[in-house]
Amino acid sequence: MKGLVLIMDGMGDRPLKEFNNQTPLEAANTPNMDQMAREGINGIMDSIAPGIIPGSDTAHISILGYNPYEVYTGRGPFEASGVGVDVIPGDIAFRCNFSTSDENGIITDRRAGRIRDGTKDIVEVLNTMVLEDYPDIKIIFKESTGHRAVLVLRGEGLSDKVSDADPKVEGNKPKEVEALDASPEAKKTADILNKLVVKSYEMVKDHPINLERMENNEPPANIIIPRGAGAVPVVEAINDKYEINSACIAETGLIMGIARFAGMDIIEMEDVTGGVDTNLDNIRDTILDQVKNSEHDFFLINIDGADEAGHDGNAREKLEFIEKVDRVVMSELKKLDDVYIFLTADHSTPISVMNHSGDPVPVIIKGPEVRVDDVEKFSEVDAAKGGLCRIRGSDVMNIMMDLMNYSHKFGA
Amino acid sequence: MKGLVLIMDGMGDRPLKEFNNQTPLEAANTPNMDQMAREGINGIMDSIAPGIIPGSDTAHISILGYNPYEVYTGRGPFEASGVGVDVIPGDIAFRCNFSTSDENGIITDRRAGRIRDGTKDIVEVLNTMVLEDYPDIKIIFKESTGHRAVLVLRGEGLSDKVSDADPKVEGNKPKEVEALDASPEAKKTADILNKLVVKSYEMVKDHPINLERMENNEPPANIIIPRGAGAVPVVEAINDKYEINSACIAETGLIMGIARFAGMDIIEMEDVTGGVDTNLDNIRDTILDQVKNSEHDFFLINIDGADEAGHDGNAREKLEFIEKVDRVVMSELKKLDDVYIFLTADHSTPISVMNHSGDPVPVIIKGPEVRVDDVEKFSEVDAAKGGLCRIRGSDVMNIMMDLMNYSHKFGA
Repeated sequence: MKGLVLIMDGMGDRPLKEFNNQTPLEAANTPNMDQMAREGINGIMDSIAPGIIPGSDTAHISILGYNPYEVYTGRGPFEASGVGVDVIPGDIAFRCNFSTSDENGIITDRRAGRIRDGTKDIVEVLNTMVLEDYPDIKIIFKESTGHRAVLVLRGEGLSDKVSDADPKVEGNKPKEVEALDASPEAKKTADILNKLVVKSYEMVKDHPINLERMENNEPPANIIIPRGAGAVPVVEAINDKYEINSACIAETGLIMGIARFAGMDIIEMEDVTGGVDTNLDNIRDTILDQVKNSEHDFFLINIDGADEAGHDGNAREKLEFIEKVDRVVMSELKKLDDVYIFLTADHSTPISVMNHSGDPVPVIIKGPEVRVDDVEKFSEVDAAKGGLCRIRGSDVMNIMMDLMNYSHKFGA
Repeated sequence: MKGLVLIMDGMGDRPLKEFNNQTPLEAANTPNMDQMAREGINGIMDSIAPGIIPGSDTAHISILGYNPYEVYTGRGPFEASGVGVDVIPGDIAFRCNFSTSDENGIITDRRAGRIRDGTKDIVEVLNTMVLEDYPDIKIIFKESTGHRAVLVLRGEGLSDKVSDADPKVEGNKPKEVEALDASPEAKKTADILNKLVVKSYEMVKDHPINLERMENNEPPANIIIPRGAGAVPVVEAINDKYEINSACIAETGLIMGIARFAGMDIIEMEDVTGGVDTNLDNIRDTILDQVKNSEHDFFLINIDGADEAGHDGNAREKLEFIEKVDRVVMSELKKLDDVYIFLTADHSTPISVMNHSGDPVPVIIKGPEVRVDDVEKFSEVDAAKGGLCRIRGSDVMNIMMDLMNYSHKFGA
């Protein structure tokens, strides 16, 4: 038996006046997902708990059966893992921006003109960084998409209890990183970061990529601004915990990073952007290929575009992306008769909020032996009348493993 | 954005033969609450957990986002706080009755003829009490409504692990208070109480108020009988926890006491009784004034009459009070379009039980962005078909804060 949890990131929403008080999902024309709703059991889900606003990271952690309140200390480690840094317990990881600094240390562009190319070359130089005062601390940079990068500090006596260097507003110097508790570890880590920010500018301000950018009147990527410190957690591998052979099919480093922590295999895809312009054909084909031809029996799948449209407050784009996923992806997935499909979102990203909210998300479980209810349509409002009633993200793995007959009895 | 949680105390019920197997709420004519149900999202709620019978205190504690299993050690502290004693952590508080004792120490009336006036004068004398063996223990009495009072013990080495002095049945002596664990603190506290009961009789048996009552053939309020020991809990202020500016509009000392612990402002009202004869116009006007004109953005409101009717087993009275609240209060509250209203009860007080039960209570949330479901009527049975499905009291603040967009994301 195979199973997949397909998460349409940020798909949940609130009623919108422009859609006649329907949500984008309600208003969208989704014949394939509606068919799945009719053939499945439906419900609503709080990824963490009712009213709690999940991040994509904490929601996925919860859905994979880990307690985000225990595991999650910050986004850095998941980002780092997602872009392929082999983080280990004890590491402190950060999200970074390549930014533009002038010679006075003022940040003139927090995203270095949204640089697309060349950051890999700049990172090669940065990865030779050794701080005089901390020769034993290993400093690992890795570029991510666009102006984004990650930073991992490895060594003795480090802490994730440090503030961000991100000045948030252009025209300011990077913020002095501060210890957030009284420990010597936090003090040391803050000092490392402050020196690292300065040194990054010294090391790459005259990098050929940056000289070229300046010649072209583009802001150089000449300084690294870290934020989102997190300590790398240790978790039991999901394959051991549930006796599965699992894989993750996702577009973004964040989700791949979480899957990597859980020990899932990561299936790479070409041409996926995490936006509404992503290549859904590739995603669909990858899913079908994996389900039909691989040894994996359990999949975490994340399609990100609806969340992006929600963050942008673009209702029409969100609706159209949902319709496109229905047309391109679900039209085929719905035919997988001998597979359990858990279709849901990780959280709502209401158009009106332009950020995540704690509103529950709709769920369909379709598969050979579910108790089919009388819900006829996939939507936030319809799902609430379904046979699952209201569940939590932490129930997902248990429900799937049970339906797949992978679980063991607790008791006799 | 403003929000209010309006609790109709004890409104939930079970089906009654005399109402054609409907509950009082189902049988009542409540056009305004029905309109709110149509315009809102509905569900059922277990204030604590399914089947657990909440007190009004533990239910409100849970609804305000505190864990009653951690915070609640007995009703005393909440009663004491509610009648205005400034209790502090470490205090042990008790509910007390003014009772009538004969010269042999037999309790002839547990409620001192339901005395209405004069207890304030008696308390003035009692507040001079110092026990010879415990000169360092401060003894604070405070009269409440009718024959009720509170007692607070303040000092070193006290415990709430002591039994009640209340004999429960008239014709007996006060019960010897006993330590409920083996600690020296419990032993000491029990001894204090036993001496205090005896001393209260000595101090006020000849109080002018009592002499006058005896002349009028009324039972004198000549002894204090404590019960319901509780240690004063320390909780994080609700305004800090949720970044709100909150106020409580309630009729009874118990609810005000809980709100005071949570650090809410208390809005005083004239002419409210906590019974079915309360002044609902005043309650309505106070709510509207506060919502429209005050700086408060979050309100806990409690209307008590339905609970009283339930305790009295008076189905008709309960139904009529619900109808009156609908007519006098909800007719106006339903018009507050830009306010989130969470309408519910704290527990069921079924007519057949004449006490609280663990049956869930109905919920409506009405407000600008709720996912409206197809429930058309406010009742225990209809609400269960709503879009909220089944939630808990501990979800209320999180859901409200999320809808009001006051919450912060957990994760990224």
